[in-house]
Amino acid sequence: MSAKTAWVIFQPSGRRGQVPVGISIVEASRRLGVDIEAPCGEKQVCGKCKIRIEQGSFQKLNMESSLLNAGPWQPGEEKYISAEEREKGYRMGCVATVEGDLLIFVPEAARAGKQVVSKAPRPLDITINPAVKQYRVELVPPTLKDPAGDFERVCAALEKQVGLNSLGIDLSVLRGLHDTLEAGEWKATVSVWMDREIIHVQPGSGSGMFGLAIDVGTTTVAAYLCDLASGQVIDTLSMMNPQVKYGEDVVSRISFHMENPDGLQRMSADIVAGLNSLVEQALSREYTLSSAHENEGVPTEQVIRIQPEDILDVSIAGNTAMHHILLQLNPVPLGVIPFTPSVHHSLDIKARELGLKINPAAHIFILPNEAGFVGGDNVGVLLAEEPHRQDAIQLIIDIGTNGELVLGNKDRLICSSCATGPALEGAQIEFGMRAAPGAIERVTIDPETHDVDFKVIGRDPWRSYSTPEDMKTKGICGSGILDAVAQMFLAGILDNSGAFSEHHVSNRFRTHPETGMKSFVIAWAKETSIEKDIVITQQDVRQIQLAKASIYTGCKLMMKKLGIESVDSIKIAGAFGSHIDCKLALVIGMFPDCALDKIVSVGNAAGDGCRIALLNRDKRVEADWIADNIQYMELTLEENFQWQLMEAIHLPHMTDAFDHLDGILPGSAANSRIPGPKAAGLIP
Amino acid sequence: MSAKTAWVIFQPSGRRGQVPVGISIVEASRRLGVDIEAPCGEKQVCGKCKIRIEQGSFQKLNMESSLLNAGPWQPGEEKYISAEEREKGYRMGCVATVEGDLLIFVPEAARAGKQVVSKAPRPLDITINPAVKQYRVELVPPTLKDPAGDFERVCAALEKQVGLNSLGIDLSVLRGLHDTLEAGEWKATVSVWMDREIIHVQPGSGSGMFGLAIDVGTTTVAAYLCDLASGQVIDTLSMMNPQVKYGEDVVSRISFHMENPDGLQRMSADIVAGLNSLVEQALSREYTLSSAHENEGVPTEQVIRIQPEDILDVSIAGNTAMHHILLQLNPVPLGVIPFTPSVHHSLDIKARELGLKINPAAHIFILPNEAGFVGGDNVGVLLAEEPHRQDAIQLIIDIGTNGELVLGNKDRLICSSCATGPALEGAQIEFGMRAAPGAIERVTIDPETHDVDFKVIGRDPWRSYSTPEDMKTKGICGSGILDAVAQMFLAGILDNSGAFSEHHVSNRFRTHPETGMKSFVIAWAKETSIEKDIVITQQDVRQIQLAKASIYTGCKLMMKKLGIESVDSIKIAGAFGSHIDCKLALVIGMFPDCALDKIVSVGNAAGDGCRIALLNRDKRVEADWIADNIQYMELTLEENFQWQLMEAIHLPHMTDAFDHLDGILPGSAANSRIPGPKAAGLIP
Repeated sequence: MSAKTAWVIFQPSGRRGQVPVGISIVEASRRLGVDIEAPCGEKQVCGKCKIRIEQGSFQKLNMESSLLNAGPWQPGEEKYISAEEREKGYRMGCVATVEGDLLIFVPEAARAGKQVVSKAPRPLDITINPAVKQYRVELVPPTLKDPAGDFERVCAALEKQVGLNSLGIDLSVLRGLHDTLEAGEWKATVSVWMDREIIHVQPGSGSGMFGLAIDVGTTTVAAYLCDLASGQVIDTLSMMNPQVKYGEDVVSRISFHMENPDGLQRMSADIVAGLNSLVEQALSREYTLSSAHENEGVPTEQVIRIQPEDILDVSIAGNTAMHHILLQLNPVPLGVIPFTPSVHHSLDIKARELGLKINPAAHIFILPNEAGFVGGDNVGVLLAEEPHRQDAIQLIIDIGTNGELVLGNKDRLICSSCATGPALEGAQIEFGMRAAPGAIERVTIDPETHDVDFKVIGRDPWRSYSTPEDMKTKGICGSGILDAVAQMFLAGILDNSGAFSEHHVSNRFRTHPETGMKSFVIAWAKETSIEKDIVITQQDVRQIQLAKASIYTGCKLMMKKLGIESVDSIKIAGAFGSHIDCKLALVIGMFPDCALDKIVSVGNAAGDGCRIALLNRDKRVEADWIADNIQYMELTLEENFQWQLMEAIHLPHMTDAFDHLDGILPGSAANSRIPGPKAAGLIP
Repeated sequence: MSAKTAWVIFQPSGRRGQVPVGISIVEASRRLGVDIEAPCGEKQVCGKCKIRIEQGSFQKLNMESSLLNAGPWQPGEEKYISAEEREKGYRMGCVATVEGDLLIFVPEAARAGKQVVSKAPRPLDITINPAVKQYRVELVPPTLKDPAGDFERVCAALEKQVGLNSLGIDLSVLRGLHDTLEAGEWKATVSVWMDREIIHVQPGSGSGMFGLAIDVGTTTVAAYLCDLASGQVIDTLSMMNPQVKYGEDVVSRISFHMENPDGLQRMSADIVAGLNSLVEQALSREYTLSSAHENEGVPTEQVIRIQPEDILDVSIAGNTAMHHILLQLNPVPLGVIPFTPSVHHSLDIKARELGLKINPAAHIFILPNEAGFVGGDNVGVLLAEEPHRQDAIQLIIDIGTNGELVLGNKDRLICSSCATGPALEGAQIEFGMRAAPGAIERVTIDPETHDVDFKVIGRDPWRSYSTPEDMKTKGICGSGILDAVAQMFLAGILDNSGAFSEHHVSNRFRTHPETGMKSFVIAWAKETSIEKDIVITQQDVRQIQLAKASIYTGCKLMMKKLGIESVDSIKIAGAFGSHIDCKLALVIGMFPDCALDKIVSVGNAAGDGCRIALLNRDKRVEADWIADNIQYMELTLEENFQWQLMEAIHLPHMTDAFDHLDGILPGSAANSRIPGPKAAGLIP
């Protein structure tokens, strides 16, 4: 019997995949790692799993009978779904089934994860050559005439079968070896790391091998659970970095270490515990793997649960501070001249040494660091983007809590780090917050009326399509702040220097009675859940100006270093890069001159590179090559750095981006050089 | 100033060495690892350190003025030493000094260790090429222009200085690396294991590197503390194997594991704790090392205390059961057909993995196993005796709780194991005990009167030179039992079959009124501290007969296997081998025919080999070569095994040893083939 499958896409995460026809939507969400809330355990008594079937066309989906594809309406659903909601396509995820292709929107209320971490895996073309390989061996049972040891018996079989020799074995594996071989009646599945060490032996045919590629960011941690045999990403897991409680940025973490004798140990223990919670998540779920064996031309599928011992490899990428704190290396030198890390080179560390609750004999591959401020996450970006393999000159900007810049091609590659400050992540901004539900993530401002429209995370309709009370806004995240500042500039609320205009066309302008600080209201108190007007202050604008100037100056100095006037493409990496509007970033002069269609957001490229290193051991060698060969450029040492930075503070920087934007945004606004946003298509 | 030195030998341990003239005898004992009791800390107030200066000549010693060589008698010594004792040469060890060559006897009361473990190091000719090497490096401090990582900086220096490359580093070392380099102002001492991994970094010039070669026996554990730079043995430490509480022999340990779910873990934890107590002993002492630097032609000396981190290498040899239990490998298969170990090959295990409290990054080298019954201790014996490098055919007999036999030369080497049972170690013998103070270790029996003379461990004078009450005998140890049985046989108390003679010439003959078991009194109740006559029973004799038959049969079957009629030499290894009287062993037919002067006791050759492996890394490769290439012969599979064993039960075995002994021991006793022991010089 062929198992019929259908395509399902979940929004807003964008996760997609084929699932067997007939399963519930909640079950489908589990298999695709979306995690719809279902606290009652699909007993149809809580109504938490309410989702919405979307209409319309979507790549790959056959959606002609969209609502019908979720199966017929069932009695009982009306208990939780109003007639109006039913009209809009709402269904209970535990009742509705997958009967055909489906595009499903999961409302915030039904999302199990509180934090919005958009780190879905990009499709990557990876040669699957994992560090761990599994072999099935059939051993000759020992006899009095041939009483060789268990380990030697396994080695002999591996040498004969696959030509491996000089193998070692992990002590923990050796401890169970005899019993395992006996249990499997001398048939076993042996996992070998780097053709060097036996790290797992299972009786009989084994239970697969899995790996985790983990991107440890200062704020968020994302992990891809991969099938090491097929390379398939079978789940994406994410969480806040638990160290956030010690401070939002790298500097405050380092300070916490300096001020607390056990600070480093505590922060390390916290991130390890966090990683273990991701592992636990993965272990608690069921996954459907398509088997290599086909049945009458149709791939068969297998539902599995992963055991800790089955996780046999891990790769970890992080910035140098996250790297040092995780490994309990003194992070202080990272923050003081001359900013040296303890180690550049990649490391292989036993899982049990790090306290990771996977197979204790597994090795954890830690991506190498490029420099004191440019860590393994950037190496990951380069593994994914491969500027060192191309003729075209790429500028790669990874904007996280710090900004890391890479410029070059196969001939020469330089990197640098710029202190963007945390403003682009919503920190140190009056109403700033992380990209969590309730945060303003998009802003438009009418250049005539200075009226504001905005969208918050977790709610689809913009303010203009909602009643004010429905917005429940809590603050502004990085992309919202960038939008707001750019739009304020485009609307003439800010002048070239970033100062507030005196020309007030709406009641949104404020001046603090005591401090004199000017501000502009983005959301009125009634549109918030904090009962305060949410404003952008002059101070906030300055923070964004500094951040963008810092990035711009870095790029320009690097271009000068390489003696180039322009770049062939700009890639924006990082979660922030996925959220920001690149056009607006160009408007405020964050990036150097580049054709708009050559600016690409590459998402969590660090995580992608980490995944590449997980799945292809040759890429680990390449990672070290990158870290060794990329040239670090300390921007603050460059002549004219301060001058350039001051120059770049202005909005927009007049020499580069603006000339370029002219073509796209024909001038019409008050400021002769600033195009009307409507004409430019920048506002709806 | 030239530092004059003198030779000192301590008895009964036999430890010897040169010490500076002028130091106290207690201090000299410390430097040579003898450990005289000095609980008052040399304050001359406890009198515990009473030792005896011996007269007479001794190889290497200039003893013409023996008593004067210990310096003049000091007022205060008479407080603890009687006039009679003074006459005999007694002195207080903390008062008497080394003024010339000395032979010093340390009475039991003054010996710090309670257990008599005679495992003094033999002088060995070892090429010093340790697995761990230390290098002093001077690093270029990092600057903004050259901000390379700490690890990379160390690697660059090592590559430039000694050509090492592709080095790894232990995580625990990396954790402290930056602070260490800074503390040493970028001068450091780096310890590298096997040219592969940095396992220790110290600021400045470092504090030396030390290693432990540990022989883990079923009953006793001996460790040699070595200076890895010079190869010098700076201390010998020993203790009972703490697992003895679970049973005297290997089988009872394996049973303990089978009967207790946590048995293996407990036994492993016990031996690890034991090894840690040896380490603690070493750390608690002061050692004098001769420095490599000479001062006006005279070697200078340095008094040091070793820190845990300075112990950078360990080699461990044990029989397969001790090996498996230490490493928590299932020992059950060792005891059931087909007797396979979990692993033959040598292992390198991190100290912290094993819980050894030395430098946590150090590797512990575990010597390989030859077969299920022939372990790393035997490999150690072969590393020390090197039969595989010689033309002469050696028979090596390692008698411990099990007997391991090796036969061959450079062309072919075979090994086997024989179940001697624990009788030769004093177990399963009516009054048997370990070789501890109070144990009868030597026995002679007058062939005419059947009167017995004996000596106990811890007391110099034989019974015939003592009052009965002074003997305080507790039991008989292995060598005493062997002596007793051989002497009973020579005196005609036992006949050829090992049965008690009916011809009773003394009141020492007994027959148990109920069981009918015959016995012979060795020590009268008044000579004991247990208030019972200590006897050798018919059953005891049978045990010894079985043990010796087992060894003899093994040797003969191996000789048959190699097609040889005689061997060029017999080497008796093991502590038991050091204690037994080889002539008497020949008398009862324990060994095959061999000229008496070709029978050599080689002491703790396993420990020697372990020391060789510690000090010369090439020998570790040789160890694996030996384990791979030696051919194990399972005696019980040999045709005629049972028949041969039955044949060999007789006293003496008539075909081999006896013919040979004829020459040495001209016949005169009742049994026409048995020489009179007096004539043979077998009794005083």
